Amino acid sequence: MRSSSLAVSHQTKALTTGLAVRHAARSGALDVPTAGLAYGYAQGNLAILPKDYAEDFLRFCQANPKPCPLLGVSEAGDHRIPAVGEDLDIRTDIPRYRVWRDGELVDEPRDLKSVWRDDLVSFVIGCSFSFEESLLAADVPLRHIERNSNVPMWRTNIQTQRAGRFHGPLVVSMRPMKPAQAIRAVQITSRMPAVHGAPVHLGLPEAIGIKDIAKPDYGDAVPVEKDELPVFWACGVTPQAAIAAVRPPFAITHAPGYMLVTDLKNAQLSV
Amino acid sequence: MRSSSLAVSHQTKALTTGLAVRHAARSGALDVPTAGLAYGYAQGNLAILPKDYAEDFLRFCQANPKPCPLLGVSEAGDHRIPAVGEDLDIRTDIPRYRVWRDGELVDEPRDLKSVWRDDLVSFVIGCSFSFEESLLAADVPLRHIERNSNVPMWRTNIQTQRAGRFHGPLVVSMRPMKPAQAIRAVQITSRMPAVHGAPVHLGLPEAIGIKDIAKPDYGDAVPVEKDELPVFWACGVTPQAAIAAVRPPFAITHAPGYMLVTDLKNAQLSV
Repeated sequence: MRSSSLAVSHQTKALTTGLAVRHAARSGALDVPTAGLAYGYAQGNLAILPKDYAEDFLRFCQANPKPCPLLGVSEAGDHRIPAVGEDLDIRTDIPRYRVWRDGELVDEPRDLKSVWRDDLVSFVIGCSFSFEESLLAADVPLRHIERNSNVPMWRTNIQTQRAGRFHGPLVVSMRPMKPAQAIRAVQITSRMPAVHGAPVHLGLPEAIGIKDIAKPDYGDAVPVEKDELPVFWACGVTPQAAIAAVRPPFAITHAPGYMLVTDLKNAQLSV
Repeated sequence: MRSSSLAVSHQTKALTTGLAVRHAARSGALDVPTAGLAYGYAQGNLAILPKDYAEDFLRFCQANPKPCPLLGVSEAGDHRIPAVGEDLDIRTDIPRYRVWRDGELVDEPRDLKSVWRDDLVSFVIGCSFSFEESLLAADVPLRHIERNSNVPMWRTNIQTQRAGRFHGPLVVSMRPMKPAQAIRAVQITSRMPAVHGAPVHLGLPEAIGIKDIAKPDYGDAVPVEKDELPVFWACGVTPQAAIAAVRPPFAITHAPGYMLVTDLKNAQLSV
């Protein structure tokens, strides 16, 4: 085990660009979560839907840009997404996928070659990794990263804007911060609308329907100290939850933590 | 009384530019607080000090730009401040002044002709009126304006950066807001560093040494509702308090509420 994890660590250190990560996934050599790979490059959430559902879903993302900021959308049946990467094959370039039938998880394959269809549309949705990199660069500490845990997330009482069959509650992620850090975080993330943008709420969790700040609906709890406020961002789990609720006959997502690493630089995403 | 206040109201309606307000003050016709006059034009706080003290005070403002954002500084003995207005005489263009000797208020004259000296340096410091105009334009309500009262202010446990003889606590103003409004207010005021910029704190008043949110040190209390957070900005009273603490042998300020109306448009002050 030790020598194998050392081998992975040695291997991933060389993955300094989005293209290098995608090539490593494509060759089958890479089978680890993508957090920390290719510093500076934007990572994205993936949702793939049949064309029939994709039309509604595109409108859902357009209507709800804070939880569903679209970085790129493919043509139906096309495995390329030029908006996010030049040499990109969405069927192979993520280390692990999830395949859903009628809303049930049926497989977690390493590529999509055996399930690909000509009517599939791929959506790449911005991810909080991008703004977290900017926050850390500005010395705003992030507790879930310090604790090596997943960010805590909640379904809120804020409803997304419905589009066709897609609807559901806004899901938010939470990062505890001292007030001056929270103000700095608003400034930094306001400039990054392509990756969820500014917080949607801070302080007063009960005002958005969060009953217990120690019990997230997804991810891991982190403590909020007395001199801190919980700061809430719209979260990419929102579109995943909307898809799960609609239970389309067929859908594909990335496996949690195994993201698409793009050619876009996080610095490019700042307006 | 009624006919005189009607006359003032009729008169001030015509004062739609900074220059018009200054001319009305210069002629002696204007003797009302300047809030609401010349919509869109930046108003400024005034501090006038002898050259000996002015050197330290300039460094104090430079070191503390959030409470002391300088819009303009005169040459010693010069009544003009071209950075804030073309046709401007600082000796006459504010409706009411305050004259201080050894830190004691000794007079509240309508002009400075009898007390002017060749060694006086004038400082014009940005004022929250400018960002409040932007907040109201974005439909962020301001309770002290709704209640026709002064904004509540506190001395905090945050110390300013000392410069020569000038030092003292940061004074903050407070505006209660719903969390989403507070986030919007951070975005809007971050773009206006020349008029105090982003909030310095929000929520958790005790963390900056405010023991009772219902008892301001200056101004009037306003209620903070259960679904609101107190949002705190660095305040132009900070330099006034620093001057009062130093007790220079001679100083001049504007009278509270009687500001210098400049040629600068608030919209110009947004970066």
